[in-house]
Formats: sequence, C-alpha cells, structure tokens
Amino acid sequence: MSTIDINTIAPRPHVAITCKAAVAWGAGESLVMEQVEVSPPQAMEIRIQVVSTSLCRSDFTAWQSHAIFPRIFGHEASGIVESVGQGVTEFKEGDHVLTVFTGECMQCRQCTSGKSNVCEVLGLERRGVMHSDQKTRFSINGKPIYHYCAVSSFSEYTVVHSGCAVKVSPLAPLEKICLLSCGVAAGLGAAWNVADICKGSTVVIFGLGTLGLSVAQGAKLRGASRIIGVDTNPEKGEIAKAFGITEFLDPNDSNEPIQQVIKRITGGGADYSFECIGDTGMITTALQSCCDGWGLTVTLGVPKEKPEVTAHYGLFLTGRTLKGSLFGGWKPKSDLPSLVEKYMKKEIQIDEFITHNIPFEDINTAFNLMREGRCLRCVIHMPK
Amino acid sequence: MSTIDINTIAPRPHVAITCKAAVAWGAGESLVMEQVEVSPPQAMEIRIQVVSTSLCRSDFTAWQSHAIFPRIFGHEASGIVESVGQGVTEFKEGDHVLTVFTGECMQCRQCTSGKSNVCEVLGLERRGVMHSDQKTRFSINGKPIYHYCAVSSFSEYTVVHSGCAVKVSPLAPLEKICLLSCGVAAGLGAAWNVADICKGSTVVIFGLGTLGLSVAQGAKLRGASRIIGVDTNPEKGEIAKAFGITEFLDPNDSNEPIQQVIKRITGGGADYSFECIGDTGMITTALQSCCDGWGLTVTLGVPKEKPEVTAHYGLFLTGRTLKGSLFGGWKPKSDLPSLVEKYMKKEIQIDEFITHNIPFEDINTAFNLMREGRCLRCVIHMPK
Repeated sequence: MSTIDINTIAPRPHVAITCKAAVAWGAGESLVMEQVEVSPPQAMEIRIQVVSTSLCRSDFTAWQSHAIFPRIFGHEASGIVESVGQGVTEFKEGDHVLTVFTGECMQCRQCTSGKSNVCEVLGLERRGVMHSDQKTRFSINGKPIYHYCAVSSFSEYTVVHSGCAVKVSPLAPLEKICLLSCGVAAGLGAAWNVADICKGSTVVIFGLGTLGLSVAQGAKLRGASRIIGVDTNPEKGEIAKAFGITEFLDPNDSNEPIQQVIKRITGGGADYSFECIGDTGMITTALQSCCDGWGLTVTLGVPKEKPEVTAHYGLFLTGRTLKGSLFGGWKPKSDLPSLVEKYMKKEIQIDEFITHNIPFEDINTAFNLMREGRCLRCVIHMPK
Repeated sequence: MSTIDINTIAPRPHVAITCKAAVAWGAGESLVMEQVEVSPPQAMEIRIQVVSTSLCRSDFTAWQSHAIFPRIFGHEASGIVESVGQGVTEFKEGDHVLTVFTGECMQCRQCTSGKSNVCEVLGLERRGVMHSDQKTRFSINGKPIYHYCAVSSFSEYTVVHSGCAVKVSPLAPLEKICLLSCGVAAGLGAAWNVADICKGSTVVIFGLGTLGLSVAQGAKLRGASRIIGVDTNPEKGEIAKAFGITEFLDPNDSNEPIQQVIKRITGGGADYSFECIGDTGMITTALQSCCDGWGLTVTLGVPKEKPEVTAHYGLFLTGRTLKGSLFGGWKPKSDLPSLVEKYMKKEIQIDEFITHNIPFEDINTAFNLMREGRCLRCVIHMPK
C-alpha cells in the first residue's frame, strides 16, 4: 500500500499521503472536499502539513476566471514540514514554515542581483504544475489535480519546491503569521521597498482590502502625514482608521472624478499612489492622482479583466513614475523571517486583518465573504 | 518712434525693436522671413539678441501639427542679453545666456522640492504666450505673433521670462553650447539623473537622433558595457559609434520583433531602455525590451500622434518601471552652467552633433534636412 493515514505520527517521506483537500472542479464552482493523494516530495521539494491558510483575492480571482481545473487553490499559508525530498538540507521534518508563491532559488541572475525578487527559476508558476518536472503532486484516482501558484494550501498536505517555503521561528503563531505569506507582506513591502515612502509625505491608496490596508500600515510606520484611502465600500472608512488611513474617500460620494478630488485636496496630487484593486483603469487614475515632478504610482493588484494599462504620455513627461510591485519587493526566503520577528516584537500588525476564523470544512464560507466584500482576511484552520 | 534698428549698439530697454524673424504662418508651411516688432521686456523679463539656435525635433513636430499660428518657433538657443525688464537683478545687458524651454522660478513647491524640475510657474508653456500676462511680445503691424515654448528663438531678438534663461560663461562658444539648451542636455540628463545608469549595465536606445545619441553619450560616460542603438535609418549605425553605441539594430533587418531580438541577445532584456523617438507604441516596445526585476524604461520623446501609452500590467508586476524625463531632470538655472563647464573641459561632446551650420535666412533648409532625416543638429546662425 502506498498511502498513509494523516494521523500517522512518524514521518514517512517516500510514500504518498491521502488527505482532505478543497478541490475546485470548475470556474466559480463551490470547492468540494475530496480525498486526494499527495505524492512524496521529489528532489529539492518538501511536503508540508498545512496549519493555517488565508484566502487572498488572487485565489478568488483565479478561481473565477482561470482555465486550469481541477485545481487546489490557496497560496497564503503556514505549516510544518512533514518530509523532505532528496537533496534538501535547508529543512527537516518539524520545521515551521511559511509558503511563498514566488520562490527564491538564490542562484539565478535575478536572485543574485541584489535588486530583484523575480526569481527566474521559481518565479510565478501559472500552469498549475511543479517547477521541476511540470507535473502535479496531487491526484484523485490517478487523475492529476493541478496546483496554484506553486503552493496549493487548501489541502491538509501539500508539496512545494524547497525554494517556495521559508523557515520561521517555532515561537511564532502559525495561525496568524500565515498572512505574511502574501497580503500583509506584499502591502508593507510596496510601501517600504518599492515606493520607499518618506516621512511627512502624502499617500493615496486605491482599494482598502488587506493589500491596501497593509500599504497604509507601511505608510504610517514610515511617518507619512496624510494617508488617503479610496474605496467604494463606505464601511471601509471606519475599519481603515485602525491601519493608518487619515482620510477616507468614496468615489460615489461626488460627481467630481476622484483624481480631481485628490489633486484638489492635496494641492496638486499625492507623493505616492497605490493601486490595490486589480483594475488597470484605476492604475491610470492613480497616476493622475499623483503630483508632477516626483509622483510615484505603484501597482500591486492583479487585474481581473482588461490587462492593459493605458495612460497619457504627458503624465510621465511631467515627472511621474509607474512601478510594479510583486510581493512588495521582498525576497521571500531572505526577508520573511525578519517580518515575522517584527510581528513578534509588535512592530507590525497582523491580527487586526483577521476578520474571520473558519474551519477547513467551511472553506466556501470564506469565498462567500470575499465575494460579498465582508471580510479582510478569513483564516482557514486545518483540523488538529 | 517706438522702434529701433537692430544695429543700434546702446541698449534701449524701453522701446520695441524691429528685427527679422522666421514666422510660421500655418502648419507645415515654409517659414517666412518677416520684419517683426519685439516689445520691450516687461517686469521680470529679458530681451535677448539671439546668436545661435538649433532646430530640435519638437519645433518640427509642433510646426507640423499644432494649431497656434502665426508663430515663431525655436527653443534651443544661445544669445546675449540686450535689455532687462523691471525687477530683474540676475541679468544685465551683455550677459551670455542659454534659453530654457521649461523655466525655473526657484520658489514654487516643485522648484524648492529638490527633486523636480517641473516648475509650477514657468513650466512648459503651450499656449504661445508669455507666462506673466498671457500676451505675446511679437507683432506685425499690431497683429500678435505667438511664441513657442516661452522661447521663440527663430528671431533676431526675443523676449523671455528671466526664469527661462540661464547665464553662462562668456568664454563658452555660443554657436556650440546652444545645443545644451535642449537636446544634448536632455539626453545626458535622462541617462544620468533620471535613469542613473550604473557601470557595466546594458542600455538600449530607440531612436538615434540627437536625443538618443546624447543618452548614448551619457551611458558611455557612466561606463555602460553594452549600448544598443535601434533606428530604422541604416545610416545611423556608423554615425552612432562616435557617441558610444556598441551595437546597432535596424528593426527592418529581421522579421523577429525588435523586443524579442533584444531579449535574446541580452539574455533576458536590457537594464535600461530609452524611448527617444516620440512614439508611444515604442514606449511599450522599450518596456518589453527591459529585463524583469529592475528593468527601467525612460520616455523622452514627444509623440507626434497617439498620446496614450498602452502596456500589459504584467510588465510592471514583474519588476519594470516606466519613468518620464523632461529636460533630463535638469533644473535649468541651477544645473546648466555646470554642463557648459563640462563642455569647456572636453568632458562631454557637443560639436559632433552639429552636422550643418546654416545662416538664418536659409532656416527652411534645416526643416528640410530634418524632414529627410539627414541631420543631427542644424545650427542656425544669426547675422552678426
């Protein structure tokens, strides 16, 4: 027999595990709790027992729109190493880890450049397979179930490349720090690494989900004087204050285009603007909301629809810059442990983003809450 | 009588001057040498006897397409102060100056920011009038003749705001340094100030006119290892070498899209790309020619047609930045004297850009040469 029960205590690295996973069988269809077979980790891979995983907007967007099914979503997660594949020396069974959706091989031109986190080897995986052999590690009765972003954490166990996980302090609460695996870190990094926000500056943030509010937190910690949050959900106004937003604007409150409102109230535009919605049209609005001379727009969101950014060249000619932010510029393996440490020292907030705690079997509730815009982060807890 | 002959030696600040100017009466129509009346300088203005002026692509583009006529073009020029208006203490009669098309008031939010050259008060003037009173200083029989870019140097005398000129060493040859008034400085600044090119890097430049070749010169002086020049004029290949281009690509030489050629020969894309043509479509190509992670595209050209830049958001998400460059980021009054000094010390090349020297009365020859792509800079010399 090639499978073991998940309750078996001793790690058995070379056999498959059968466990529960929330499988998406089709675009926008409710996830179905299935028994899936999780292959043993291959060379340079690790198998992780997922502890907590939170639902991120990208999971939701991909679930609604992407063509690769059946699939196991989830990419913002924490867990414990169950077994390691051949050649892995960095991890051992029992290590606490965060998964990372954009890996770090530490050897390619990008990883060794000292100025990029866009790994050439383990960068964004879009085909739903493992980087090494283009195959899946999940199956049901021999039928492959595809991965998502090289992580697939909506499963009790998952296999990831060892470059797509980072060891963290065993003292850190896994059920909280899973948020550093994507959203909170991505927002903080966009503010700190990509924009490098200065003290006393004016910041405008489009979209006040976890990403946008993490940018706000980053801006606040850098000493920005004005942090203007823009969202069409009027309830966000109150919530956003806790993360540093000093002024809230709902574009529906006025007939004046939002970029004009911002230019007016800031005397010419913000120093920095952040697009955290995933709407390329808003990238243009964000550029227009920045000031001449040094206005910097950072785009973080992953567009659901039109993938083209369109903007008048004059916005650039008069001194604006448009920059993208992938995972906030963090090199995940190199940088995430220090963010976990900052959380442990209470220098950054994470808990405040967790609006819902949901048992794994109710995972569809998280999708419903996100669809209805009623959550920041829903943390999904695996059975103990 | 309110006018004086231009040969009058003693400055007479408070009377109009009648002199020759090359007037554009309509879009794309040959300039006509006319006797124009040049008003005395108003408060904070200076009247300049133009010595040399070179034809820049922006003059040409505006002459072909803009709606404001009759007009006196020309914005890249050197001259001698003939008289000063009330309140001017910075200049006196006889001072040698360069004109600047984007002024520096030294007092606004932008000028005092230390990080911008996009003056709020004396920035790009597009209506063909003086900043102070929205009127012209040129007329023919009382009919106003419009300015261009607050300079209008295709006239023996012109009036500019004192913030739109910079005093330079009287030892510098005015017939050469006029090129620092726009093109050569704009290209050098894009390489040095805006992109801040690193030693050993790979640079790709789209469009090998004076602007593009000045970027090349800047890149070479910063120690870039590979400077790839792209132009559809095959004659540019040889010319470009003198300015630092190490490889020349003519997009018509291959069926492979130029961005793919560049990505292939650079192993993933250049560190920096510069759009020096004035074609928003090429801005996209320039972005695509840059590498993931840290690729920086700088746009310098002024588009003749479609003013919208369109690019896939993924280009930004994977680490690219798009930045505009207005006059190479130079603060004209603060920075131009040091460029003149560099030229005097032979640290930068200017002379090599001058392909033609043309007497003022033959100014239409310069327009013809530019139309036919047969020049870098034509310097137009005023009668002595």
